[in-house]
Amino acid sequence: MKISFVGAGNVAWHLAKAMDKQNQTIVEVYSRNIKNAARLCEKLYHTKATTNLDFTNSVADIFIIAVPDDCIEMVVNECQFPENSTVVHTSGTVPLHVLANIDNCKTGVFYPLQTFSKSKELDMKKIPICLEASDIITEKLLEKLAFKICENVCFYNSDDRKTLHLAAVFACNFTNHLLTLSKKILINEGLEFSLIKPLITETLEKALQIEPENSQTGPASRHDHKIIAQHLKMLAYSESLSTIYSAITESILDKNNGKR
Amino acid sequence: MKISFVGAGNVAWHLAKAMDKQNQTIVEVYSRNIKNAARLCEKLYHTKATTNLDFTNSVADIFIIAVPDDCIEMVVNECQFPENSTVVHTSGTVPLHVLANIDNCKTGVFYPLQTFSKSKELDMKKIPICLEASDIITEKLLEKLAFKICENVCFYNSDDRKTLHLAAVFACNFTNHLLTLSKKILINEGLEFSLIKPLITETLEKALQIEPENSQTGPASRHDHKIIAQHLKMLAYSESLSTIYSAITESILDKNNGKR
Repeated sequence: MKISFVGAGNVAWHLAKAMDKQNQTIVEVYSRNIKNAARLCEKLYHTKATTNLDFTNSVADIFIIAVPDDCIEMVVNECQFPENSTVVHTSGTVPLHVLANIDNCKTGVFYPLQTFSKSKELDMKKIPICLEASDIITEKLLEKLAFKICENVCFYNSDDRKTLHLAAVFACNFTNHLLTLSKKILINEGLEFSLIKPLITETLEKALQIEPENSQTGPASRHDHKIIAQHLKMLAYSESLSTIYSAITESILDKNNGKR
Repeated sequence: MKISFVGAGNVAWHLAKAMDKQNQTIVEVYSRNIKNAARLCEKLYHTKATTNLDFTNSVADIFIIAVPDDCIEMVVNECQFPENSTVVHTSGTVPLHVLANIDNCKTGVFYPLQTFSKSKELDMKKIPICLEASDIITEKLLEKLAFKICENVCFYNSDDRKTLHLAAVFACNFTNHLLTLSKKILINEGLEFSLIKPLITETLEKALQIEPENSQTGPASRHDHKIIAQHLKMLAYSESLSTIYSAITESILDKNNGKR
């Protein structure tokens, strides 16, 4: 297949390299900043860097828009695509229908459920790729492309993708922030975050292995109200820490949390 | 050294096996339930299971009380220890002074900063052991014992241990609960938790590698109020989920969170 990337950020970086490695032709990489596009092209077999959003004369069949979520609509409005090509975005939060105005093209979503950074290599094979397509032919095309780079391909509509994204905010963005807060609590008292890193690693491994609902420990899970009161006293200096502590503690104490 | 364990739970299980492996003599293991004590003794070289808290005639030099935090005081009141022996507990939250009433004994804390379960093997070498002692001779003794089983030995007083424990509640107990909530959000919509497991693993690896304050992503970190409002609408069915979402989102939006 012949593929072009609109965007040269973290997602484009990993997808383009994985596809290139599997002998797919990456035709162009667009970026507003030619240097960013060129840096990615250096890693690919034979790809042109461009700052031009008019792809009318491109030989690519598939255009992958990999720009920040809130830029997708704007970029789409500025792009010109060749007739009968397929245009997809890579976002978990943006519905398929934002691509509906593209004339004479098939559309879809090609959403890799992972967090990417350029500096960290990843085994793409293990990453779930969630697909959605405007029609059954595009479905088959995207499925074929996804299976070239990974083993775990699934179809979800825009609503399911929203749920996946919300769940990921709790499981990833919020857990990351709790680590930041934990580090601040330690540093405030002159202690080092590295001390609790082995504990964090083991806790997460265990949660994923035996499922988190079976691995809950701590004062709230054993209803130790004495320690909870002590902790809230220690956190009295920060309204934000106290609020988070209380909210999560209440939720652990309440067995019905999160149920519809 | 000759060591006896009061308690046969997860902590005793891992510490006793690690010490036994390093050729320390585990004299006795006490449990209210003889079967639990016997099950641990089976894993050790030559250890007696007991339900008797009168250790007056024991040949052990060090007694390690590894029972749930809120049972330590009660157990200590019921125990009889030989004169001039050393008695320690293994808790992060209980101050050293709860052992102060033990007559004619040295006292200390031997707190392994890790979560243990019997079914999961652990590399004890990497686990920090936090020590506190009533006097300098006991300090040296506990340090020697700790270095037999691990590489990371440190001294912290009871206040520091409380801070470490509070930080661990945020970084481990609370993150585990967020995974539980994330799973519920997915299951409520008929989606599988396993889908986001690769994302969770990668997020945590990255946070520990480049530090969590450098790896925050998500709608709150990019001040995407449109998505935040959408998420709160999706969570409207649960007051508990909405409260947690808002509290952590506010904290991410506020750069000064957690500072004294």
